[in-house]
Amino acid sequence: MTLRTGAIVQALGGQLHGDPDRLITGLAPLERARSSELSFLVNPRLAPLLGTTQAGCVIVGADQSAAARQRSDGAGDCIVADNPHLYFARVTQMWKRLHGGAAQRGIHPSAVVEEGAFVDPTASVGALCFIGRGARIGADTVLKPRVTVGEDCTLGARCIVQSGAVIGGDGFGFAPRDGAWEKIEQLGAVRIGDDVEIGANTCIDRGALDDTVIEDGVKLDNLIQIGHNTHIGKHTAMAGCVGVAGSARIGAHCTVGGAGMILGHLTIADHVHISSASIVTRSIHKPGHYTGFFPIAENGEWEKNAATLKQIYRLRDRVKHLEEFLPEQDQE
Amino acid sequence: MTLRTGAIVQALGGQLHGDPDRLITGLAPLERARSSELSFLVNPRLAPLLGTTQAGCVIVGADQSAAARQRSDGAGDCIVADNPHLYFARVTQMWKRLHGGAAQRGIHPSAVVEEGAFVDPTASVGALCFIGRGARIGADTVLKPRVTVGEDCTLGARCIVQSGAVIGGDGFGFAPRDGAWEKIEQLGAVRIGDDVEIGANTCIDRGALDDTVIEDGVKLDNLIQIGHNTHIGKHTAMAGCVGVAGSARIGAHCTVGGAGMILGHLTIADHVHISSASIVTRSIHKPGHYTGFFPIAENGEWEKNAATLKQIYRLRDRVKHLEEFLPEQDQE
Amino acid sequence: MTLRTGAIVQALGGQLHGDPDRLITGLAPLERARSSELSFLVNPRLAPLLGTTQAGCVIVGADQSAAARQRSDGAGDCIVADNPHLYFARVTQMWKRLHGGAAQRGIHPSAVVEEGAFVDPTASVGALCFIGRGARIGADTVLKPRVTVGEDCTLGARCIVQSGAVIGGDGFGFAPRDGAWEKIEQLGAVRIGDDVEIGANTCIDRGALDDTVIEDGVKLDNLIQIGHNTHIGKHTAMAGCVGVAGSARIGAHCTVGGAGMILGHLTIADHVHISSASIVTRSIHKPGHYTGFFPIAENGEWEKNAATLKQIYRLRDRVKHLEEFLPEQDQE
Repeated sequence: MTLRTGAIVQALGGQLHGDPDRLITGLAPLERARSSELSFLVNPRLAPLLGTTQAGCVIVGADQSAAARQRSDGAGDCIVADNPHLYFARVTQMWKRLHGGAAQRGIHPSAVVEEGAFVDPTASVGALCFIGRGARIGADTVLKPRVTVGEDCTLGARCIVQSGAVIGGDGFGFAPRDGAWEKIEQLGAVRIGDDVEIGANTCIDRGALDDTVIEDGVKLDNLIQIGHNTHIGKHTAMAGCVGVAGSARIGAHCTVGGAGMILGHLTIADHVHISSASIVTRSIHKPGHYTGFFPIAENGEWEKNAATLKQIYRLRDRVKHLEEFLPEQDQE
Repeated sequence: MTLRTGAIVQALGGQLHGDPDRLITGLAPLERARSSELSFLVNPRLAPLLGTTQAGCVIVGADQSAAARQRSDGAGDCIVADNPHLYFARVTQMWKRLHGGAAQRGIHPSAVVEEGAFVDPTASVGALCFIGRGARIGADTVLKPRVTVGEDCTLGARCIVQSGAVIGGDGFGFAPRDGAWEKIEQLGAVRIGDDVEIGANTCIDRGALDDTVIEDGVKLDNLIQIGHNTHIGKHTAMAGCVGVAGSARIGAHCTVGGAGMILGHLTIADHVHISSASIVTRSIHKPGHYTGFFPIAENGEWEKNAATLKQIYRLRDRVKHLEEFLPEQDQE
Repeated sequence: MTLRTGAIVQALGGQLHGDPDRLITGLAPLERARSSELSFLVNPRLAPLLGTTQAGCVIVGADQSAAARQRSDGAGDCIVADNPHLYFARVTQMWKRLHGGAAQRGIHPSAVVEEGAFVDPTASVGALCFIGRGARIGADTVLKPRVTVGEDCTLGARCIVQSGAVIGGDGFGFAPRDGAWEKIEQLGAVRIGDDVEIGANTCIDRGALDDTVIEDGVKLDNLIQIGHNTHIGKHTAMAGCVGVAGSARIGAHCTVGGAGMILGHLTIADHVHISSASIVTRSIHKPGHYTGFFPIAENGEWEKNAATLKQIYRLRDRVKHLEEFLPEQDQE
């Protein structure tokens, strides 16, 4: 389970300063890396660690290459890469591949694949998965164990679906009937593009009439709920516990922080970034960064604040009333 | 995969204006329906679409039947129904039934049903489900693939449980012991009525001593957590990502929006509606609509607001102090 | 399915006042217990129920033993225990054990255990579980049906994992590449100590380079997301729907209420208590109780408050302006 630095740059490019025969036994962050480990500098605030790290070799950008080579202990092998973060990602991929971590192609014998489903021969369907009739799993896509892909749902190429995910559950649709609810059968499916990752126990509901659509390159973390008829544009990423209600139309290159919520029937433009725990209640047409959650405080402070907040609009009225007594030229 | 409009009204009632031999090849929303598709008008704000839709036939209420028949292109078949939303729901059901979408009765061979469990012969237990001993699954109930129904838990008739749901996990109960936690075994079960729908990866915990109870007609969306000993009244509906802590008693005909949270040991009256992302921290005895979340804003605005909010009670004090300087007759 | 009170105190200690041959047919809360049932008093606010309960016997602390014996109906058997809550927990354990509720040791034939995984012979692996290669399941640990333990992940002794939990899904790590996301392979695993309980459909991600670590005695409720590289200290407990982003370092003996959220790369000291639905956005170095959520109100009140809140910092500015007109000696 080792790799020489020379073999890394041969495979991935970059400029090696130091010994190409240096043996790397693992990858580690700068502060914990040992002399047989490869590390990396992505966050510029961590640059001072370059002087003290014990790492055998460090992946850095061109601007840090001098610093990387002037270590206090005299050592200082480094690989200079155009994009050290991306380079590091590729080293992890190389590492996994070489250490037998790639998923095995084919359908695990314990998986249930219904008649009329198509699984590309290069795809991997893990243990105890269920694939409904009419579903299609694209080339090199990996379903980890215990994934559900409902009938008629399709995944493109090179997707990864973590354990417990449910693709194609029924959307939540009911018509009121004398105080009860009558089911609206969900006749659409889920259509997922290429290079999509779907987290553990995440749910993507099938559409009511049309399909729910997840475009290429979307990344969804764990325990996310995607309501029916939602459309998510390319390369949008959502962190854990996010909820998207039905029929939302979310642009490309967006990000949603953990536990963010997007209500139904909204439109979100491309390049919109929603902070964690913020709830989107109206369409957002302008790219940018949006936030809305209550700041945390010691419980006693919060209780005093909450008491004021319950009628904060009255406080505004009182200020307005006070302002009426200001000398005239000072009023806004 | 087609249906004639005459056959629809024969099966579901309603008054057909137009050609009973018109062939319907699918259902679609007004703005996208083609001339071989059936559409519907539920939301009155969409009524103007009646003049421009390409739909072959539209389900409408009596008040829109004239508008539906006066289309700009001269076409204008429609079905007039007392409750067009409900009628549409029934068309989706008919469509699904006719197109082979009904769940197959019986127990899938890959499911594990423990000895001493009872599954009604008309029920459907999907692939890779687990049913514990003493559990009971009622008539015509459908468990989609990969559902857990724990020991002694019961579901009534005509329930639908989506993939990944866990009914009867242990409630979260511990007694403190010298800084550690001692498990309180959860000796109750889960008792679910008729016509209940449970979403994908939703969890309903078994009671500590008594049962957790979900009454008839309750609809739970995906990724919902129902704590132990909770009681949910008839026809209450909850959207995705809702959490209900232990021993809550929630009335009938309530709704909870996505990611709403209800704390433990609270009582919620019938006909209470909780907005999305709102947290219920006290019992609610009066029917109505309740809300509580922080409004979203551009991040810069939010940061300025958050700074003020951290000591909003001091702002109140300052206003009070200012008011002491008002001319006497103007003070509140 | 019965137990005599004498047998209970013989097994668990405590002081019995009353008939040791009294037959107990079940456990129930004070307000619902019948004369053949055993109950308990933990919450001192419920002490008045001691006079009216129908319970055959009640577990109480020394301070309530007189009250328990002076029931209005003349009955009043009780067991006096040092810690009645803990005593009650142990009675539930005894009850479950005697009534055949203990999990069966061994690996259910429908479970998939990959080559190179180790399952202690005293452990229980439920139906339809998946255990990846290199994983280790410790002594007396119980995996309920449909649990995933990914490759190289380890659980200590006496853990309980509820149905649907996913231990060792990939952490959410990507490097940006020309507007798209490049996967950072997650090379760490998950390391779980002894006596840990993990709720239904809860997810614990594997680390990117190092392991995600859950220390002894941690209790996690349902539908919780634990991001990669998180470290959770001993005996910390989290209620349902909590989210912990990546690389958080949470102390020992903490509690997090339902739907609390902890952002990434934060440090939380020991003995910190986070209220339900509160979002932790900065490290907390001082033990204590912290809260931050928007109080719920009738929707109309909330709307008026929300309108004011959108520019609450302007209200502060207006107050500041007003204060400039105060007589000089009164300004703060």
